[in-house]
Amino acid sequence: MDFRIEKDTIGEVKVPADKYWGAQTERSRNNFKIGPAGSMPIEVVHAFAYLKKAAAHANCELGVLAEEKRDLISKVCDEILTGKLDDQFPLVIWQTGSGTQSNMNVNEVVAHRAQELAGRKIGEGEKVLQPNDDVNKSQSSNDTFPTGMHIACYKMVIENTIPGIEQLRDTLKRKSEQFKDTVKIGRTHLMDATPLTIGQEFSGYVSQLDHGLKALKNTLDHLAELALGGTAVGTGLNTPAGYDVLVAKKIAEFTGLPFRTAENKFEALAAHDAIVESHGALKQIAVSLNKIANDIRLMASGPRSGIGELIIPANEPGSSIMPGKVNPTQAEAMTMVCAQVMGNDVAITVGGTQGHYELNVFKPMMAANFLQSARLIGDACRSFDENCAQGIEANQKRIDELLNNSLMLVTALNTKIGYYKAAEIANTAHENGTTLREEAIRLGYVTEEEYNEWVDPKKMIGSMN
Amino acid sequence: MDFRIEKDTIGEVKVPADKYWGAQTERSRNNFKIGPAGSMPIEVVHAFAYLKKAAAHANCELGVLAEEKRDLISKVCDEILTGKLDDQFPLVIWQTGSGTQSNMNVNEVVAHRAQELAGRKIGEGEKVLQPNDDVNKSQSSNDTFPTGMHIACYKMVIENTIPGIEQLRDTLKRKSEQFKDTVKIGRTHLMDATPLTIGQEFSGYVSQLDHGLKALKNTLDHLAELALGGTAVGTGLNTPAGYDVLVAKKIAEFTGLPFRTAENKFEALAAHDAIVESHGALKQIAVSLNKIANDIRLMASGPRSGIGELIIPANEPGSSIMPGKVNPTQAEAMTMVCAQVMGNDVAITVGGTQGHYELNVFKPMMAANFLQSARLIGDACRSFDENCAQGIEANQKRIDELLNNSLMLVTALNTKIGYYKAAEIANTAHENGTTLREEAIRLGYVTEEEYNEWVDPKKMIGSMN
Amino acid sequence: MDFRIEKDTIGEVKVPADKYWGAQTERSRNNFKIGPAGSMPIEVVHAFAYLKKAAAHANCELGVLAEEKRDLISKVCDEILTGKLDDQFPLVIWQTGSGTQSNMNVNEVVAHRAQELAGRKIGEGEKVLQPNDDVNKSQSSNDTFPTGMHIACYKMVIENTIPGIEQLRDTLKRKSEQFKDTVKIGRTHLMDATPLTIGQEFSGYVSQLDHGLKALKNTLDHLAELALGGTAVGTGLNTPAGYDVLVAKKIAEFTGLPFRTAENKFEALAAHDAIVESHGALKQIAVSLNKIANDIRLMASGPRSGIGELIIPANEPGSSIMPGKVNPTQAEAMTMVCAQVMGNDVAITVGGTQGHYELNVFKPMMAANFLQSARLIGDACRSFDENCAQGIEANQKRIDELLNNSLMLVTALNTKIGYYKAAEIANTAHENGTTLREEAIRLGYVTEEEYNEWVDPKKMIGSMN
Amino acid sequence: MDFRIEKDTIGEVKVPADKYWGAQTERSRNNFKIGPAGSMPIEVVHAFAYLKKAAAHANCELGVLAEEKRDLISKVCDEILTGKLDDQFPLVIWQTGSGTQSNMNVNEVVAHRAQELAGRKIGEGEKVLQPNDDVNKSQSSNDTFPTGMHIACYKMVIENTIPGIEQLRDTLKRKSEQFKDTVKIGRTHLMDATPLTIGQEFSGYVSQLDHGLKALKNTLDHLAELALGGTAVGTGLNTPAGYDVLVAKKIAEFTGLPFRTAENKFEALAAHDAIVESHGALKQIAVSLNKIANDIRLMASGPRSGIGELIIPANEPGSSIMPGKVNPTQAEAMTMVCAQVMGNDVAITVGGTQGHYELNVFKPMMAANFLQSARLIGDACRSFDENCAQGIEANQKRIDELLNNSLMLVTALNTKIGYYKAAEIANTAHENGTTLREEAIRLGYVTEEEYNEWVDPKKMIGSMN
Repeated sequence: MDFRIEKDTIGEVKVPADKYWGAQTERSRNNFKIGPAGSMPIEVVHAFAYLKKAAAHANCELGVLAEEKRDLISKVCDEILTGKLDDQFPLVIWQTGSGTQSNMNVNEVVAHRAQELAGRKIGEGEKVLQPNDDVNKSQSSNDTFPTGMHIACYKMVIENTIPGIEQLRDTLKRKSEQFKDTVKIGRTHLMDATPLTIGQEFSGYVSQLDHGLKALKNTLDHLAELALGGTAVGTGLNTPAGYDVLVAKKIAEFTGLPFRTAENKFEALAAHDAIVESHGALKQIAVSLNKIANDIRLMASGPRSGIGELIIPANEPGSSIMPGKVNPTQAEAMTMVCAQVMGNDVAITVGGTQGHYELNVFKPMMAANFLQSARLIGDACRSFDENCAQGIEANQKRIDELLNNSLMLVTALNTKIGYYKAAEIANTAHENGTTLREEAIRLGYVTEEEYNEWVDPKKMIGSMN
Repeated sequence: MDFRIEKDTIGEVKVPADKYWGAQTERSRNNFKIGPAGSMPIEVVHAFAYLKKAAAHANCELGVLAEEKRDLISKVCDEILTGKLDDQFPLVIWQTGSGTQSNMNVNEVVAHRAQELAGRKIGEGEKVLQPNDDVNKSQSSNDTFPTGMHIACYKMVIENTIPGIEQLRDTLKRKSEQFKDTVKIGRTHLMDATPLTIGQEFSGYVSQLDHGLKALKNTLDHLAELALGGTAVGTGLNTPAGYDVLVAKKIAEFTGLPFRTAENKFEALAAHDAIVESHGALKQIAVSLNKIANDIRLMASGPRSGIGELIIPANEPGSSIMPGKVNPTQAEAMTMVCAQVMGNDVAITVGGTQGHYELNVFKPMMAANFLQSARLIGDACRSFDENCAQGIEANQKRIDELLNNSLMLVTALNTKIGYYKAAEIANTAHENGTTLREEAIRLGYVTEEEYNEWVDPKKMIGSMN
Repeated sequence: MDFRIEKDTIGEVKVPADKYWGAQTERSRNNFKIGPAGSMPIEVVHAFAYLKKAAAHANCELGVLAEEKRDLISKVCDEILTGKLDDQFPLVIWQTGSGTQSNMNVNEVVAHRAQELAGRKIGEGEKVLQPNDDVNKSQSSNDTFPTGMHIACYKMVIENTIPGIEQLRDTLKRKSEQFKDTVKIGRTHLMDATPLTIGQEFSGYVSQLDHGLKALKNTLDHLAELALGGTAVGTGLNTPAGYDVLVAKKIAEFTGLPFRTAENKFEALAAHDAIVESHGALKQIAVSLNKIANDIRLMASGPRSGIGELIIPANEPGSSIMPGKVNPTQAEAMTMVCAQVMGNDVAITVGGTQGHYELNVFKPMMAANFLQSARLIGDACRSFDENCAQGIEANQKRIDELLNNSLMLVTALNTKIGYYKAAEIANTAHENGTTLREEAIRLGYVTEEEYNEWVDPKKMIGSMN
Repeated sequence: MDFRIEKDTIGEVKVPADKYWGAQTERSRNNFKIGPAGSMPIEVVHAFAYLKKAAAHANCELGVLAEEKRDLISKVCDEILTGKLDDQFPLVIWQTGSGTQSNMNVNEVVAHRAQELAGRKIGEGEKVLQPNDDVNKSQSSNDTFPTGMHIACYKMVIENTIPGIEQLRDTLKRKSEQFKDTVKIGRTHLMDATPLTIGQEFSGYVSQLDHGLKALKNTLDHLAELALGGTAVGTGLNTPAGYDVLVAKKIAEFTGLPFRTAENKFEALAAHDAIVESHGALKQIAVSLNKIANDIRLMASGPRSGIGELIIPANEPGSSIMPGKVNPTQAEAMTMVCAQVMGNDVAITVGGTQGHYELNVFKPMMAANFLQSARLIGDACRSFDENCAQGIEANQKRIDELLNNSLMLVTALNTKIGYYKAAEIANTAHENGTTLREEAIRLGYVTEEEYNEWVDPKKMIGSMN
């Protein structure tokens, strides 16, 4: 392999000749061989492209960067955003906890690619851009990385997570309406209970997701705060006046998202409570999705020896050994995602507690876990929606059979004959293997007419929706 | 011990003669000998007193309960709220997951105590109140227990957690102002960095708690929703029209808190996402508090061989073997609380995922963990505030010594001579054990006048607050 | 309330006159009003009684403590172990993270109660025992508290947890034998699968618990290591030669458990990996118990509209509104316990990571969580065993009905006609709502004789046990 | 793109013409667009190659598979193990929870590649191997996937995790010896305490890792159990007699690892407690590593305004804004890894609890988290060792300065003059800013000779090692 020699404040380093990165990226590559190469989420790299461009614009507008430099930086950032330079970012999550080398990776790639764009050869002649003094101007890893985290996480939530959840929520809402008159047996403690409609059951799922979406949106205000302008420790050393507000405005403009400068830069560097907060909402949504997916697979269990009230699409052969088997595979993918999000929440929480003094150094780990959760939830909702929820049908025959069998219809008699007599009817029918009707009349607590009038599942489902 | 015979739908049970509880409570006591007796949080019992009274009022107003019964129920509920009947609630958290026997415990105590209040003897003559038909009228464990959870948790958050956090937050705010001009060395990666003021450091803590309080308050709207009126499966079977709205209004009135009937009763029984959501905010606050307490103890470490920038109150002898030792004990209590809250969050999350069909049966465990977290955070904030934060002082001599020693003041030269030359100055001083000033001048990059003008910690702290 | 004046190295404190504790306990009571009073687990206090007595004996044997003092200390320790002094230990978990004040609480109670036993009045005349110099001789909180943790946790595991698990395991083993010929439909993905016996299913539960018990026992060797003798930082300062080995021997003798001095005292003070390790095994067992309890309640679901293959005891009325309802309440208590243990594991893990230098200061929190988990698992296993597992019966009629209905019996044809033709049979039967037999013959893939010969559930259960 | 038509029991699917996979893989690719493509760990795929080959050999030896088929299967498996077919496995973690399609992916690739090796064209002529009937013979996804999990996880632990930990442990052991006479101040509660040597401190780390390694090895016996032979539900349906033992022996032979058939196949399919158990040990090791890395960075903090007792290698420029800054980056990578492992433990634990009936369907998620943890720990230990631990040096000047300053040396006087007088000396020196010596003599408690004799740090470090 061909190499060129790069230098930083520590000394010389050999770098692959065909790569845009420089000395510090190469050092990090060699010093952190932990897990697969390139694990730093590409979304963070792209977020850096937004912020480097925004910083260049703000610096120029505030008179500390030349227009030509601004334009060169912007041009490379735009290239990064197309994805065509993705292979120039080889670093891993498990590096310095401030993400310093990933910041430098971007600085180096921008500077070297700009050298090319300016028609020169990398490593020859004067540098058109200095990685630290130009590309990183008015910045520190300590404020760029948390800014990159917020941009990447916010974008993922807006572009993937929320639309995914909403798509599933809308389907469940439609299903709730479709099944609004399908009365079925209720179950509490997994045991037979009083009836309700499938529509009502599904309305509970919709309500869960609506509350989850609201909770998630409540957190976005904190996530919209950007650390940029705090530089090394939050004081904004080496930034021109007005820079923090302006650079956040530029980022908002370039991303189309309502970012603003953080109220308090010391918090924004030293703590990542906004990440903890938003991920807490993702975890809440995972809790809801787990409940929903679990219920649906329980109700679809069978086909002959389970509950069998719902029919879900058969998407693939379910077994390599049992012919004809169909499984609730989307529910399984979904609940695995939920378990993962629950685990990620602990990793993020632990990382969040461990800021020391002016800097939290669990940044890349927190970002990676957040982005994974946000993406998995969005993707899994869409997958579950398209391959399962949309195709859910009610198995009317089975539903009726189970409903009419139930002893818990006796509850309707509480207000007529009291809890104790009602219990006696149910217990007797259970012991004798008979029907409620038979025993209610035999015990003399109600007449047949009364029974027919009072014990009607359709009247037991109330007006809740 | 004296016993009396009580009956339920299963049969007869011997109950201690001097207790108000009945057959179902006694069964539960015997069937669930898991952990210490009486572990069901008393706050849940008191919350039940509010809701039983509210239900009696609503039932009466809607014409399904006699005024005398309403008054008897109310009277016992008021007694429960004074705490004088606390020893009548012997059940544990680890019972049926719907808290059914704790609901029945309240129903039984209310009925039996009412029997006494009506001048009769328990177990003799006609019952003035039936536990199921009267005290539990228009209710099910399935809607009362989650209602009791929300009441108890909401009250704890409002009465203990938030005031505790605010008290600490206010002290930290005052400290932030007190130390607004105390310039000290900053630290990132635990390593020396550019300076800031203690006031700025503390402003970060204030910002964390402000964001945490906001996040917590954001969750209260969901927690204010009450399940009551959903009865067995959410359909509201056996409740009079308008009952759900009315009973929530009564609870709001009796507690002085903005409760309202849940939008969707199916969610309110089958999922406890509101508990998950609010506890997520408690966990976020624990993350913040952990960072704050940790920082303070690190800065107070010493007295002679640590950082020693802060002086915290000496509240007790620190060691049983090392004479004269003083320890950051409040920070230790606080960080232990934070770890507990992080653990509780997982327990609650796991419980939250496991609702099946129409009912989540992890209710008592979720309530107990939430109440513990909410109380511990409130108490620990107050304890930390009164026994530590209020007494924090700056050790000016030590702060100045560490600040002036620092090599990171060189950062101020970046914008004057560039990052690389600045690094050379710092590295040389580090290697030679000399000062920045000496090396900066010796290397010829700045004059003494320039150095004095440019490298001034007071000018390096920016205008961030 | 009457008070007496007590002194420590900080100054004077008013202490309730009727209590044995002294100045440092009283300070801690006042400085840490966090959560309910007296939350420090009494098992830790009792463990301290063992170790204080053992230290007195070792000190005496090594010539640094008078026999009279040894005897006085021993006498009070024996009193503590009877439980009659339990109300002399009012401190909370959330104190200094080394448990220093709980150590001093014991030292003070021993010294003051000894004063009484010596026929003197507390606070009058010469002290027969000095809390620090005599009761705490050759000790530090830093080595006594972790020693107390290990004693308390080890005892709980041996006396409660393991016997509880073994009791349930033995019942499940008996049930496995009882049902060894009860062929039923298997289920994978909650969907119908090939048959097995209930005995086989239960043998899996037995295997889980056997593996869990083995894993737990594997951890006890680490938990048997005692920190005592390390004193302040692990060096054993101020202890006589041979003390660490001897005092551990004494503790082993007094408790009847195989304790020994820790190989490395620095680890034993600064880290609590032994607690993390043993609790990890408790968590594993919780994972197993959750699976077992969950399966049993699923198989017992119904009575008419669920799976209904197992019948579990009806211990209490299941619902305050639905008459005659019976619920799997023991499974619910068990799974709530499992969720709690999972949460406690995170609290303990977080605490375990946070030792700094020579001391981990999350000790009381770790001990409290461990003891709760260990007790809850033991208690819950016994409760589940006695109130559920022992009474489990098979519902033969229902089992046969579900088995014979199943389409997955077709798997037996794979080796005869291949997976694809077998799938065709199953799919056709599923679509037509017919039986496998009908379609197998109709499609011409097998003769009736072959079908009867090959598709026999009893032949499909193999020889696995 | 070119396609060919593949068929399974559901119907026809278009598959990229240049890929070896078939209908079921393609369905899964399309039905589970969740997270990045190909996320199923390649280690699981390679483990499948071992087991498919072993199954072919066992089947052949037991007379149910022709030798030519065995050889073809083996040949493709060997190719898979070289890594050259890695791009033939495009499926994701978030698929069916039994990993069925990943099993089929291997079956399909083996069958199609064998077609080529047999000189035929895929999709043309008779199939030399049937994916289900030949490659999957005597197997089910339900027993192959857990077998693959165990093989992959066991291998990773043996080949990466344990060697990595041992490498770091050995370095720490050497450092412990190197610094065995370097007396320094101890610290408890982050506060100055009695002295010890760096060698002693490091011996604690060694002890932690030794205990962790022992704990991890204790779990391997469970992980060595293989599910293979249980087929669909654990009964071993459709396997020849003796197959389970033989196939495990083959796998042991091919991998060189001590695998054996699981004692109980029902457990091995329905629960993954072995994964939970081994990962529990990984989590314990993460707890230890977090403590170690944290201590080292605290002791290396500075260079001028921190503790500064240790000097760690400067591997890269520490800051993009602060010139000359060096950071404890390896400790940061390590502690991020530890947080991740803690999170993964929760994901695995949650997955482990959720087996239903005969099958746990969180398999791919559990495998992926385990493999990530095991790899990250091994890699991070190596990285930390080579880039940090090996280069750790003591800063003797700083160590002496801090030691001699300390007030806690007074503890040596406890046994001479009692705890209270010793405390008076320390408190007075603290208040007056004087030395212990000065105050000890001034207060008249010791003579200068006594002080010199008794208060000697070198005598305070005991004989613990």
